[in-house]
Amino acid sequence: MNSFGVKFRFTSFGQSHGKALGCIIDGVPAGIKIDLEFIQEELNKRKPGQNEFASPRKEDDKVEVLSGLFKGHSTNTPIALVVFNQNQKSKDYENIKDIFRLAHGDFTYFHKYGLRDYEGGGRTSARESIARVCAGAVAKLMLKELDIKILGGICQIGDIEAKEFDFSYAKTSQIFALDKNLEEKQKNKILEVKKSHDSIGGVALIKALSCPIGLGEPIYNKLDARIAFAMMSINGVKAVEIGAGIKAPKLKGSQNNDELSCDGFKTNNSGGILAGLSNGDDIIVKVHFKPTPSIFIEQNTINTKNENTKYKIKGRHDPCIAPRGSIIAQAMLACVLADFVLLNTSSNISQIKKVYENNENSNIL
Amino acid sequence: MNSFGVKFRFTSFGQSHGKALGCIIDGVPAGIKIDLEFIQEELNKRKPGQNEFASPRKEDDKVEVLSGLFKGHSTNTPIALVVFNQNQKSKDYENIKDIFRLAHGDFTYFHKYGLRDYEGGGRTSARESIARVCAGAVAKLMLKELDIKILGGICQIGDIEAKEFDFSYAKTSQIFALDKNLEEKQKNKILEVKKSHDSIGGVALIKALSCPIGLGEPIYNKLDARIAFAMMSINGVKAVEIGAGIKAPKLKGSQNNDELSCDGFKTNNSGGILAGLSNGDDIIVKVHFKPTPSIFIEQNTINTKNENTKYKIKGRHDPCIAPRGSIIAQAMLACVLADFVLLNTSSNISQIKKVYENNENSNIL
Amino acid sequence: MNSFGVKFRFTSFGQSHGKALGCIIDGVPAGIKIDLEFIQEELNKRKPGQNEFASPRKEDDKVEVLSGLFKGHSTNTPIALVVFNQNQKSKDYENIKDIFRLAHGDFTYFHKYGLRDYEGGGRTSARESIARVCAGAVAKLMLKELDIKILGGICQIGDIEAKEFDFSYAKTSQIFALDKNLEEKQKNKILEVKKSHDSIGGVALIKALSCPIGLGEPIYNKLDARIAFAMMSINGVKAVEIGAGIKAPKLKGSQNNDELSCDGFKTNNSGGILAGLSNGDDIIVKVHFKPTPSIFIEQNTINTKNENTKYKIKGRHDPCIAPRGSIIAQAMLACVLADFVLLNTSSNISQIKKVYENNENSNIL
Amino acid sequence: MNSFGVKFRFTSFGQSHGKALGCIIDGVPAGIKIDLEFIQEELNKRKPGQNEFASPRKEDDKVEVLSGLFKGHSTNTPIALVVFNQNQKSKDYENIKDIFRLAHGDFTYFHKYGLRDYEGGGRTSARESIARVCAGAVAKLMLKELDIKILGGICQIGDIEAKEFDFSYAKTSQIFALDKNLEEKQKNKILEVKKSHDSIGGVALIKALSCPIGLGEPIYNKLDARIAFAMMSINGVKAVEIGAGIKAPKLKGSQNNDELSCDGFKTNNSGGILAGLSNGDDIIVKVHFKPTPSIFIEQNTINTKNENTKYKIKGRHDPCIAPRGSIIAQAMLACVLADFVLLNTSSNISQIKKVYENNENSNIL
Repeated sequence: MNSFGVKFRFTSFGQSHGKALGCIIDGVPAGIKIDLEFIQEELNKRKPGQNEFASPRKEDDKVEVLSGLFKGHSTNTPIALVVFNQNQKSKDYENIKDIFRLAHGDFTYFHKYGLRDYEGGGRTSARESIARVCAGAVAKLMLKELDIKILGGICQIGDIEAKEFDFSYAKTSQIFALDKNLEEKQKNKILEVKKSHDSIGGVALIKALSCPIGLGEPIYNKLDARIAFAMMSINGVKAVEIGAGIKAPKLKGSQNNDELSCDGFKTNNSGGILAGLSNGDDIIVKVHFKPTPSIFIEQNTINTKNENTKYKIKGRHDPCIAPRGSIIAQAMLACVLADFVLLNTSSNISQIKKVYENNENSNIL
Repeated sequence: MNSFGVKFRFTSFGQSHGKALGCIIDGVPAGIKIDLEFIQEELNKRKPGQNEFASPRKEDDKVEVLSGLFKGHSTNTPIALVVFNQNQKSKDYENIKDIFRLAHGDFTYFHKYGLRDYEGGGRTSARESIARVCAGAVAKLMLKELDIKILGGICQIGDIEAKEFDFSYAKTSQIFALDKNLEEKQKNKILEVKKSHDSIGGVALIKALSCPIGLGEPIYNKLDARIAFAMMSINGVKAVEIGAGIKAPKLKGSQNNDELSCDGFKTNNSGGILAGLSNGDDIIVKVHFKPTPSIFIEQNTINTKNENTKYKIKGRHDPCIAPRGSIIAQAMLACVLADFVLLNTSSNISQIKKVYENNENSNIL
Repeated sequence: MNSFGVKFRFTSFGQSHGKALGCIIDGVPAGIKIDLEFIQEELNKRKPGQNEFASPRKEDDKVEVLSGLFKGHSTNTPIALVVFNQNQKSKDYENIKDIFRLAHGDFTYFHKYGLRDYEGGGRTSARESIARVCAGAVAKLMLKELDIKILGGICQIGDIEAKEFDFSYAKTSQIFALDKNLEEKQKNKILEVKKSHDSIGGVALIKALSCPIGLGEPIYNKLDARIAFAMMSINGVKAVEIGAGIKAPKLKGSQNNDELSCDGFKTNNSGGILAGLSNGDDIIVKVHFKPTPSIFIEQNTINTKNENTKYKIKGRHDPCIAPRGSIIAQAMLACVLADFVLLNTSSNISQIKKVYENNENSNIL
Repeated sequence: MNSFGVKFRFTSFGQSHGKALGCIIDGVPAGIKIDLEFIQEELNKRKPGQNEFASPRKEDDKVEVLSGLFKGHSTNTPIALVVFNQNQKSKDYENIKDIFRLAHGDFTYFHKYGLRDYEGGGRTSARESIARVCAGAVAKLMLKELDIKILGGICQIGDIEAKEFDFSYAKTSQIFALDKNLEEKQKNKILEVKKSHDSIGGVALIKALSCPIGLGEPIYNKLDARIAFAMMSINGVKAVEIGAGIKAPKLKGSQNNDELSCDGFKTNNSGGILAGLSNGDDIIVKVHFKPTPSIFIEQNTINTKNENTKYKIKGRHDPCIAPRGSIIAQAMLACVLADFVLLNTSSNISQIKKVYENNENSNIL
């Protein structure tokens, strides 16, 4: 259950304080140039410690390739990517080892498994997302071959909602803000809760451009269903919207139906997906993140003996997980699309004949 | 890709105007009494033609069991359930066979497959949900053995949002309304759009009670992720929320974190799921449905030759799919929970030893 | 676990004395003409009651299509095929309901499930192979589009081993004998054991011609591994050989290595598979069937109370299952190859670009 | 496709000359003590360079754990095991880079992928089996908790077949010979072909003791089917037998049927498997290995331009792969059984109720 995807499939490993985290990416078609610098850059975007809006924790994550390449290209054999933890020595977790931190997996993991890795949250740590970003980076390299592009940014912090959506601007913003006019206000919201030892939630807006028509596999592996699955599997996500999303229920059919002309769709309430298949328009996804559970305020909880107690978090945590979360969400969308690109190569017999005719022995490198 | 679930897994078949629709349910543990009347009752709830708020189309769906039972009990062999279509003769679809209806799968299916079953929407028809309801009914029979219960109802029609949530009341409401005070207003909203040949969206609220702690399989098969996957795979769903959902981003950590005492959780912003595992509290899901795409107003579209054209739907369609959709959503939640109940029987070595010690040969019937 | 295959995937249902048996075939590419007469002919080959070498039981199995076709063609939606049991009334199974028949699943099913469907063997009945043959027939229709062909016949009955292998002859032989010179001897062997109320085993030789190079998915879904899996899942199979098979261990490398010239391979010890991938040469598989367990001689066994007892089978059974088994084996090989044909359409980036470039909207029907 | 298993599932990575090989093992129940020394010992058994009967190549493989343990115990999170290649510098493969070595994957990989990693065979190298042995070792640690035991040895080299089967003796034999009386003869056979620059095949006999009744998941995931799948996926395997295997077709039913008494089965022609489920008796598997393809004799082949050519292997290779192969086969059987042990915990409702009743919060460490 630590694998994601069907044909483009990554399997991840690693807990917060283990030796290393990483993933094996299976199904990458042979012949794609794997640009390691690009993977590292992607990874750098999710790193904390880069500014005052994220955790001050320094995680100098450096990716290494253990397998899967030949002369810098994919060979369809598993690509193993690994990031070694720099600082494995466990901090003192004695104070929380017997209590269940709120809104974390402490309580549920303990009861499911009969034990709990309390060091840095173990497998539930946000460090697990390193694997997602690595896999997403490889997915993006594959999608680039078909000119498919992923974009993302922050459209909401607390109740401050973006009105403009500038994805180029978001790239340079410290909180990946989409609305440059509201960025300052959103930043201040984060600093304000940080100052009061609290945290706040936020919303990411993710897009995919230039998708071919027909990605998605009915009836239970619809593109929107798999996107919802992917997004909701990210730590802290509580809601996922596609296209018009939560506005759709309020619309009439005559408002919501996207008209078609020979120049394409006139509106995009569908979010680029009809009946679970991409329709060629932009794919639009909104991902809602809850506030960081780890706050520096005393809270009531119980311990492993089911006794009432209080606790207060120490350490370094993001006052808002949404900005870094938006990077993970983009990675997951890339993985979903890469998978459906591969799955969609045998949907009809014409495609298949195209593949097998002139199936020559030419060297593709 | 027409299968749903890992251990409790159903595979469905059938298009709108075929001979029959149905499903094979695999993985049902041996020894469960399969109450066919209950399955039929569940199926009756999704039927259209029962009142003025749904399509007037009569679908007298009668379920038959083709396999999998012995003396009325499950045997862990595949349970095949089938509903024969009463009226297979295709209506005249000549007028829409070359045009793409808006907000339907016509455009995307045609491009993906190079052909399109235009009779009643083919596989994209809402009749496919018969299979989901059948599988969900069997899932509920299994969950009942562990006292797990599924509830559901409508909390929003258009922009009219419920303030009270009475799940008992919903059962008797023609639109499964949760708020009896607003029901009339919600009904009127539906009748109003119906009169103007239009449609409207709505939102269902679904709950599961008495779930054991620990359902869900990290890290990519989290309970919330699979619920989102299940819900978003239902026709017309555009957003899924868990617990506090879209309100979570606006909350501070100190507000959102559900406090624990020896009596349990004090609030339920988590929606009964922590780190992807059920925490024993109620599981809470909101499912947002778009307005029915099929409206009786002329709209612009293109035909299969990419020429601009206009069309107007004939036939009988629900003015609002949310009420019947809420039945499908409950069925899907039951399937997800049944799957995780089965998957959770080997999470730790104590469980496994319990199963294998005293593994006697007693007849369980 | 009642599904077979990854992309070309069938899910079967049905027990011996249920209402019906059948399968849902998922993943069939759109646009293939589905010839129902061909499916029925394939099914007729596995029927008992056709001559004195098989069970005299009459099973007049007639296949029906419940879904998945549009104007006679596949649409990539699930194809449901069903065969209704003609004679559902259970014979008197009182005499065996509490005893475990030897070499059958009675003992193991009872202990695994805590109950046992004793009517005609329930799900373990050879009638389950109806689903395999139906799925295999559809697979063959798909393979025909790429000119891949499946052949088979009997190469051994008891210890009488064929020396010549005439696959055309086998088609017309009542026991599908490959060696016309030894056919009589093999037939007599069957009649001889039949006369003494006993049974005998046999071996089938199965071939696939004109496979493209590269079918199979390393490292754990190798073509030979999946063939072995498919064959060993057939009732009564105790050994599977590929190419030189059990002779390979006795050979030296210099004898076993198939030399390559620009005209192809000079020998075929590999059985058409190198490193788990088809090499373009004939695929060669041998499938060893045990003697029918159901014999009409008194044998010692125990009952469900673990008491020693004796029993004697009544009813009608094949004196040798290998001839009809050879039909099942061909069907399974077809399913395996169909699956790998679909899986092999995204092995390298050139293939994928071929599929997506000029991905036009033409109607393929 | 680089994953093996359903619930106990390992995903492997690594090619011959990459940085590292290894695997991620998913689904290991929490609370099992993971003895690293045992894993290393298992790995040592497959190492070449230990005597004159195997390749003189020194591979000093040292296993490292990257994740998945907490205080030395499994946590149900992925266990990542890795073996770094000591000597990554590629030898001169210029002489074989454009030719297809016989009986290897060179030809098929080149045609499937459009490229070929010619350094040490890339992913097709026998070094991939390191991952299998690592996963098998963890599987054995899990099986030990239920007292299930795996044994193995060599029963045939060339045409010299064992008559006695002493599994204790095999452990100490340099070629894992089961028959101490024939060991010398078998060893001499290997030395003889080695001297003539050739190679020879062999057969391994593998057993599992003390399996609970009921392992295996009908109808397509039968225990014997999965064993055949597992074994045939090992490099060089050309045939797999269960129980009486290739002798079964020659037997009459009255000879082959294993009689049952209240003391158990009297014979074991079934190989411990009835109708695809373990019957409690010893599981017996025979695995046939072809002779090593890499021999030091000049052979005819073609190059990537399809021109006839000759080549002669240099380097160090096993004269017989069967002895080391028998270690891999044991590992694979352990993985198969571990998977079915986990899958069999929800076969009937009594099991499930046992798991969920008294599902207390006790710490299992």
